[in-house]
Amino acid sequence: MKKQVINLLEKAQNITEYWSPKVVGEVDDSYVKIAKVKGVFTWHDHEEDEFFMVLEGQLTIEMKAGSVTLNKGEIYVVPKGVMHKPVAETECIIMLFEKKTTLHTGKVKSELTKSIEDQL
Amino acid sequence: MKKQVINLLEKAQNITEYWSPKVVGEVDDSYVKIAKVKGVFTWHDHEEDEFFMVLEGQLTIEMKAGSVTLNKGEIYVVPKGVMHKPVAETECIIMLFEKKTTLHTGKVKSELTKSIEDQL
Repeated sequence: MKKQVINLLEKAQNITEYWSPKVVGEVDDSYVKIAKVKGVFTWHDHEEDEFFMVLEGQLTIEMKAGSVTLNKGEIYVVPKGVMHKPVAETECIIMLFEKKTTLHTGKVKSELTKSIEDQL
Repeated sequence: MKKQVINLLEKAQNITEYWSPKVVGEVDDSYVKIAKVKGVFTWHDHEEDEFFMVLEGQLTIEMKAGSVTLNKGEIYVVPKGVMHKPVAETECIIMLFEKKTTLHTGKVKSELTKSIEDQL
């Protein structure tokens, strides 16, 4: 992947589908991804930690033990193995950091499941 | 480390020293750090890739092959082994994502070198 400066919000304008993370960079064995999200995603977990940062809008991450809400400029790391369901009432743009091996919806397969290496 | 929502710019207000990255989260074997920078840092490289995101202000990363300038909301990954020298003309707040093993100034030791596990 070409090494270049990336403006995340500009890049996100090219995303046409909700809940479909796009790779915008790689850091060793991890990908940096951005996604445009709106509505309710599926419950799932991963074998690796998952880093969320809200770039625009608001994201709620529901977990069995309670939920957290992130606004612009806020981060949260969902620990490996923790079931979570992201929800955005209105359109929200997020950045994700996760291992290259991390599956989009973990072991859960649904019609929402996307390839893990989809690039913009 | 406690898992909680972190507002990066609010958190950065607690930083009192330039060029002294603070751990604000961990994602598997990597740390998420924030730093307040101003002025000229030392030339160095790392054995791992290093992710930069500008949260406020402007950062230039000089490299032997040329420099890149990042404004707010922009990211750049310095590949492993690439000598670089970050420069900020005015105060700038950045987020870093790097392996837990990444040394602050690589093999270069200088009076600017900080512990890699310094937390806020």
